[in-house]
Amino acid sequence: MELRFSACVLLVLCVTWGVNGGNVLVWYTEGSHWINMKPLLEKLVDGGHRVTVLVPSASLFMNSSEPSRFHYERVESSLSIEVMEKFMEEFLHFSIYEMEHMGYVQMYLRFMELFRINLKFALGNLDGVVKSEEVMMKLKRGNFDVLLADPIMPGSELVADILGIPLVYSVRFTMAHHFERYCGQVPAPPSFVPGAMSKLTDRMDFWERVWNFIFYAVQDVVLNHIYWKTVDSYYSYFLSGTGKPTSACELMGKADIWLIRTYWDFDFPRPLLPNFKYVGGIHCKPAKPLPKDIEEFVQSSGDAGIVIFTLGSFIRNITTEKGNMIASALAQIPQKVLWKYSGQAPETLGPNTKIFNWIPQNDLLGHPKTRAFVTHGGSNGIYEAIYHGVPMVGIPMFADQPHNLIHMKAKGVAVMLNLNSLTAEDFRDAINTVINDKSYKENAMRLSSIHHDKPLSPLDEGVFWIEFAIRNNGAKHLRVQAHELTWYQYHCLDVFAFLLALILTIVFIFIKACSFCLRKCCGRKTKTKSE
Amino acid sequence: MELRFSACVLLVLCVTWGVNGGNVLVWYTEGSHWINMKPLLEKLVDGGHRVTVLVPSASLFMNSSEPSRFHYERVESSLSIEVMEKFMEEFLHFSIYEMEHMGYVQMYLRFMELFRINLKFALGNLDGVVKSEEVMMKLKRGNFDVLLADPIMPGSELVADILGIPLVYSVRFTMAHHFERYCGQVPAPPSFVPGAMSKLTDRMDFWERVWNFIFYAVQDVVLNHIYWKTVDSYYSYFLSGTGKPTSACELMGKADIWLIRTYWDFDFPRPLLPNFKYVGGIHCKPAKPLPKDIEEFVQSSGDAGIVIFTLGSFIRNITTEKGNMIASALAQIPQKVLWKYSGQAPETLGPNTKIFNWIPQNDLLGHPKTRAFVTHGGSNGIYEAIYHGVPMVGIPMFADQPHNLIHMKAKGVAVMLNLNSLTAEDFRDAINTVINDKSYKENAMRLSSIHHDKPLSPLDEGVFWIEFAIRNNGAKHLRVQAHELTWYQYHCLDVFAFLLALILTIVFIFIKACSFCLRKCCGRKTKTKSE
Repeated sequence: MELRFSACVLLVLCVTWGVNGGNVLVWYTEGSHWINMKPLLEKLVDGGHRVTVLVPSASLFMNSSEPSRFHYERVESSLSIEVMEKFMEEFLHFSIYEMEHMGYVQMYLRFMELFRINLKFALGNLDGVVKSEEVMMKLKRGNFDVLLADPIMPGSELVADILGIPLVYSVRFTMAHHFERYCGQVPAPPSFVPGAMSKLTDRMDFWERVWNFIFYAVQDVVLNHIYWKTVDSYYSYFLSGTGKPTSACELMGKADIWLIRTYWDFDFPRPLLPNFKYVGGIHCKPAKPLPKDIEEFVQSSGDAGIVIFTLGSFIRNITTEKGNMIASALAQIPQKVLWKYSGQAPETLGPNTKIFNWIPQNDLLGHPKTRAFVTHGGSNGIYEAIYHGVPMVGIPMFADQPHNLIHMKAKGVAVMLNLNSLTAEDFRDAINTVINDKSYKENAMRLSSIHHDKPLSPLDEGVFWIEFAIRNNGAKHLRVQAHELTWYQYHCLDVFAFLLALILTIVFIFIKACSFCLRKCCGRKTKTKSE
Repeated sequence: MELRFSACVLLVLCVTWGVNGGNVLVWYTEGSHWINMKPLLEKLVDGGHRVTVLVPSASLFMNSSEPSRFHYERVESSLSIEVMEKFMEEFLHFSIYEMEHMGYVQMYLRFMELFRINLKFALGNLDGVVKSEEVMMKLKRGNFDVLLADPIMPGSELVADILGIPLVYSVRFTMAHHFERYCGQVPAPPSFVPGAMSKLTDRMDFWERVWNFIFYAVQDVVLNHIYWKTVDSYYSYFLSGTGKPTSACELMGKADIWLIRTYWDFDFPRPLLPNFKYVGGIHCKPAKPLPKDIEEFVQSSGDAGIVIFTLGSFIRNITTEKGNMIASALAQIPQKVLWKYSGQAPETLGPNTKIFNWIPQNDLLGHPKTRAFVTHGGSNGIYEAIYHGVPMVGIPMFADQPHNLIHMKAKGVAVMLNLNSLTAEDFRDAINTVINDKSYKENAMRLSSIHHDKPLSPLDEGVFWIEFAIRNNGAKHLRVQAHELTWYQYHCLDVFAFLLALILTIVFIFIKACSFCLRKCCGRKTKTKSE
């Protein structure tokens, strides 16, 4: 009886699996990229799919030993965790403290140096997959239906190609949209599409357009020189002799779907392609009730409401001087302040400010008493603020944070400050401005409405297209023919050259014919005259 | 008691209206454009919206006196129905019979002549709206929330601007995508986006790309010369002195949403913009049971199944010779044939063929016994065939029919024939091919799957974005900044010119400096030597 029951359960499971269950392979990634990947994977598991995540042994953010609904596949990296940690610290130090005091050229050279090291490390992780016979055998036997990857880590396109399975990217952006433009073939006229990280908006004057144009060009040259040269030569080892393209960019262009983790609530509208799906705010969700002690503190703010203040998880301490300046500014506002901070409490801390080691950020942002969000400008926090319609004061630190906050400033929901030159008065005034100038709240509510007023939630849309790729073995019908053209064919330069040559030939023949006729006539006349 | 009940009902209605009810104004259109507009309007009425449709007195296809759930607003056109009918006949005669025997230049000149007359008539209809104080007063008092229009008929953008309400377009395409490119700012590189009506696919060799490039250019010149010149001068009368743009194209560019009545099951993938929504197949629906006599005839076909044959509603009669040829071809296939035809039954009609004055086309296409669809290639019929996954034999007549069938041929679901040079053998073979060569059915099923495997049905998506425009007073957040740029700014030609001038200046200064130094050195040397 029990045996029959078990068989029945197995049968039901098998049938369910047959209907819903796909076999999803997930490429490793790091930091906020991993945070953004997780909700998709959770939803895929909810939908009955099996999710296998590759995790390099030297990963800083992915923890393959924590209990999870995903199946983790450990990959032996040729690097150690210690080396990775040291590099991360070096990168943060450069981004937050050194950059400010460097000349542009010096800064760029140092950045390129760090970029090279990062790429070397990334290929060290990749060694653990493609150079390991054991891992590759497991992947080949895994019968995966789709590979889901953030292209920030190279290698996924190579493995998808070797396994012969569809590839779905999840991308926030790449520098100057380089991958999206070059490999995804998405059009991005520099006249109104500001390069990612250029610190420009879509409303550019002449000089900004010149800068944007140069920014695109410089990124393209640098990435060609550093990134593609290295990655192409790495890939060619595996693909030479197969007759397949050994250009990594060409392989990336075979991706079936690009899930772009932004939307027109955050980004500026721009041209897209049928296989580019904008799913910004994939991790956003409604607020849950607050823990009792936090709720009590929040309620004690009365009509003035609260301000949430966090500089992200990378900044654990600031100088005593900065700490005091910040605390004294916060002490001057009528709101209660919840400050997420792991350092020692500053002396000037006001009675309205409470320091927390950890805060339930999303639940606080969704609380009706929340008046403003003071943030370092990480994209996940900003998206939560958009979701709940909260105005922001931004103090960007590094990476994409200035880029993100410039978007929010342009959309009228944030005031931007600089931590290095910040004064208590400026800080206090900025918070008062976004709370008291009604336009900030109105704009925040408008963005929130844009975010919510969509046929599908970002998460549902992302999952839909991954499942589509599983159901249909990719999404070839969404792929533009531009992928098959060279750059001069794409821009019709060969057609231009031909038409120009044709016109010049016709003009030349016409002139020659005219001059011939003229000579004939004049010659005859001269002859007649001389007769 | 009854009074209280009525008051209650009224209250409920008012509340419902407040939640769902928008006030939608619909611009007049003609032919298949009107057929495509209707399902959207029906769905809007289902959703509790009030729909008011403008109908010119000289409309050939819109019947304001038939019972309907829409409110029709009659507009007195300065034309008569007779004049319109005569013009339509003239146009059909040119398209079906004359074109074939004309040289290219002669054909184009005749087409332009007809185009000019058509535009004159369109402006005659527009007179009935904008020059009528009564109509304009009604529209202003109508408190409309959105104007829905097919831009094939000019005027909607002018009236939306005067009324100050959002504008949603429903467009199949315009010649060479001229309106979409120029006014909607959608990118369309001629290297892989074949101009609409160019008879090209997205896989073009060099000569086809040259032709596509020229096709775009010629259409742009012709439309600038004929269309914009006339429409701009018409609009400027109403807008001069208001400080508003008097360019009709600029006004069109203010449209909030462009519902494009195609999708990647029918069209070739191409770049789009956030406010371009692809809703092809908006009228498609599941098949209903057939009338008893037709079902009996269909069932009598056995395993061989049936073929559906229609050349559309414009072709009522063909020559006796052609009729006999067609009938004899149909008599040679094993399938039963349902032929929609209003002419006299040909002598060679086989026992397997039955002529019908009218057929329930969609219900037949969705019937499991249907093996093939012989069609003139109207977009609505083709979309129904895609929806139900039926292979096609196409005999295009005029307008967009060759364009549509070239798409279906490229996607491997249709064989294309030419009515003028058609033989019975070719016709019979074509039907046999699409039925017996399995690839046609497989491709048809693949297109059907692409059509159905979407997060939202085309109709739901169309209605969603119209309601979005109502809820949010437009959709400004989807509008690219490209609209604010001149053509040379858009293509960065000013930036190019500046950078080129800069580089040339630097080179010039460098050469001058070098030559100066050289002269200095050489001069001194010469001097030294001479000393």
